[in-house]
Amino acid sequence: MTTLISNIATLVTNDPSLGRGPLGLVEDAAVVIDGDRVVWIGTTSQAPATDSHLDAEGRAVLPGFVDSHSHLVFAGDRTAEFNARMEGRAYSAGGIRTTVAATRAATDAELDAAVARYTAEALRQGTTTIETKSGYGLTVADEARALRVAARHTDEVTFLGAHIVPDEYADDPAGYVALVTGAMLDACAPHARWVDVFCERGAFDGDQARAILTAGRDRGLVPRVHANQLGPGPGVQLAVELDAASADHCTHLTDADVDALAGGRTVATLLPGAEFSTRSRYPDARRLLDAGVTVALSTDCNPGSSFTSSMPFCVALAVREMGMTPDEAVHAATAGGAAALRRTDIGRLRPGARADLVLLDAPSHVHLAYRPGVPLVRAVWRAGARVV
Amino acid sequence: MTTLISNIATLVTNDPSLGRGPLGLVEDAAVVIDGDRVVWIGTTSQAPATDSHLDAEGRAVLPGFVDSHSHLVFAGDRTAEFNARMEGRAYSAGGIRTTVAATRAATDAELDAAVARYTAEALRQGTTTIETKSGYGLTVADEARALRVAARHTDEVTFLGAHIVPDEYADDPAGYVALVTGAMLDACAPHARWVDVFCERGAFDGDQARAILTAGRDRGLVPRVHANQLGPGPGVQLAVELDAASADHCTHLTDADVDALAGGRTVATLLPGAEFSTRSRYPDARRLLDAGVTVALSTDCNPGSSFTSSMPFCVALAVREMGMTPDEAVHAATAGGAAALRRTDIGRLRPGARADLVLLDAPSHVHLAYRPGVPLVRAVWRAGARVV
Ligand SMILES: [Zn+2]
Ligand SMILES: [Zn+2]
Repeated sequence: MTTLISNIATLVTNDPSLGRGPLGLVEDAAVVIDGDRVVWIGTTSQAPATDSHLDAEGRAVLPGFVDSHSHLVFAGDRTAEFNARMEGRAYSAGGIRTTVAATRAATDAELDAAVARYTAEALRQGTTTIETKSGYGLTVADEARALRVAARHTDEVTFLGAHIVPDEYADDPAGYVALVTGAMLDACAPHARWVDVFCERGAFDGDQARAILTAGRDRGLVPRVHANQLGPGPGVQLAVELDAASADHCTHLTDADVDALAGGRTVATLLPGAEFSTRSRYPDARRLLDAGVTVALSTDCNPGSSFTSSMPFCVALAVREMGMTPDEAVHAATAGGAAALRRTDIGRLRPGARADLVLLDAPSHVHLAYRPGVPLVRAVWRAGARVV
Repeated sequence: MTTLISNIATLVTNDPSLGRGPLGLVEDAAVVIDGDRVVWIGTTSQAPATDSHLDAEGRAVLPGFVDSHSHLVFAGDRTAEFNARMEGRAYSAGGIRTTVAATRAATDAELDAAVARYTAEALRQGTTTIETKSGYGLTVADEARALRVAARHTDEVTFLGAHIVPDEYADDPAGYVALVTGAMLDACAPHARWVDVFCERGAFDGDQARAILTAGRDRGLVPRVHANQLGPGPGVQLAVELDAASADHCTHLTDADVDALAGGRTVATLLPGAEFSTRSRYPDARRLLDAGVTVALSTDCNPGSSFTSSMPFCVALAVREMGMTPDEAVHAATAGGAAALRRTDIGRLRPGARADLVLLDAPSHVHLAYRPGVPLVRAVWRAGARVV
């Protein structure tokens, strides 16, 4: 079963050998899908005959967004906390701890429904691959449960037992690290691809993070790190040292941090939704790009600090606030995310790639920044199937 | 034919006599619609029997957004100009003049299709009333045509012949003001409710603006003013002096400007999409609210400086960037817009009001700011008819 999508005003391939510039842009383009794969890319006039045909009528097509950082396995509501923050009022509730308590109290079905809801919401906005994490369980059973639930909805599952030290270990953080690297890792490693640590003042320091990431790596998990979000710290350089797939946030970077990223293959994943929703300063994407660092954009979707599931919104913010051009932001939200997940089958449209495509109600990918907030995603294919 | 919407977790009425606080919030609420009007508001347990019934299942309902400032009668494309601006490259094309040339060259059907497209896009995002303007014609025939096209799609039509001085009058701006206040006004007044001037350095000065607004007023049009967007100027105080319905932008205000607004009934309409898309400083809504000024939020949707049609996006920006609380921003996007259009039948939900309602895929209106970029509008009623 082959399908032709023709009359694409602007096609983003992210393959410079197929088109113009780093985005490999093809004008008046056509794509042929066979099963779950892209099998042909060219211009409309050269397109082959196929079983079925869709006329894009001068709209743009790009690879499905790859959201490489989210926290979707949660329960509970933090609207009041957000409201208080935006009103400048003090709020005594416990931040992540609020979500941990609600998540522990939730049924499996409730957690499953939450992940289903938010992955579907992301899909409607063009996200065809989404990573998601544990981190609101913080017991052996609750972390393993979170990963099992996540794995029903995505292949990209991350063990984040080291999100915060839970209340019951407040006086014994070393004991919690021992749990995370021991029984919790035993229970969780079979259900995850990645291991992650929130390496930040108030969460886990460099030595603790190294112990957890190394233990995870020894069990076949690949490291990724929450690094340098709230202030300077060892997270970014540790990520590069351990050849982590990604250092996420990267808001507060020294020159040595930037040099480390430029010298390794760790992707810098920027999460502007978090800065938007916490009124914090944005990371400087320009500095990273100019240093030759690979940059990804992701939502950080979570109920506390960034409750957006919208990759188009992150693209628009990256252009407005982080010194990225529209082309760079679209690349970071697609090929960048794929690099942060060490995937070569997604984030690009070329023969052999998975047929993950987004059709925009606009003639070019630039409109994702030019038309902020407007729901421009008109159709989505994932692995060759039209899903939106 | 009566319809009940019940089980509304949070209902925003904007009528303090009906519920809690300035937003008149009702929890576990129900609304009854009869024909094009709201006829009853209360709690679900007290709801009367009706012909049909929709269970909101714990979602939020608010009045339809009132977007009191847009420029939708246009043709042409300015993607390249936006792209150049965001890449920091110089771009030699003519800004508004580019759109004027393309709009003059377009057919009536093309202009009609553009207005239809963008009003429908806005409606899908919850905008049940939208004002739109001429201003890309700048000849007698082209301005009158723009207003006739606009009037097919909305009752809120504004004559903005004084958008810029067109090229053919570059050496004779006084001659253009004479045209606007003479033959152009004769041709346009029958098709519009409002008269507007872009009162800014490089466009029209205070004396020119006064002449145009006064001439319009003498023909039964009510003034509104593009004021103090790019720098300080006489626009805001002129708007108050002429009892204009609204002073729009209000980015650069002196204390005297704020005092004037606080002492009159002119609404301050803030357009954060313009600051977002031009990387400009945002207006200070907090200062205006603290002074007692009525604030409206609108999109300024236009292809040059703010190509968003999303009122939810403007709400989120107002909270992040302009010192508004989520409640204040939602009020400004509904009741505020209605005030800027001097309408009492919209922007509020109470018995007798037009049945313009938005059902969100969220339990409260706060989620419009808490979940930025996410398309949360699940259903829309306009004048009692379900349209989304
Ligand atoms: Zn995170
Ligand atoms: Zn305007």
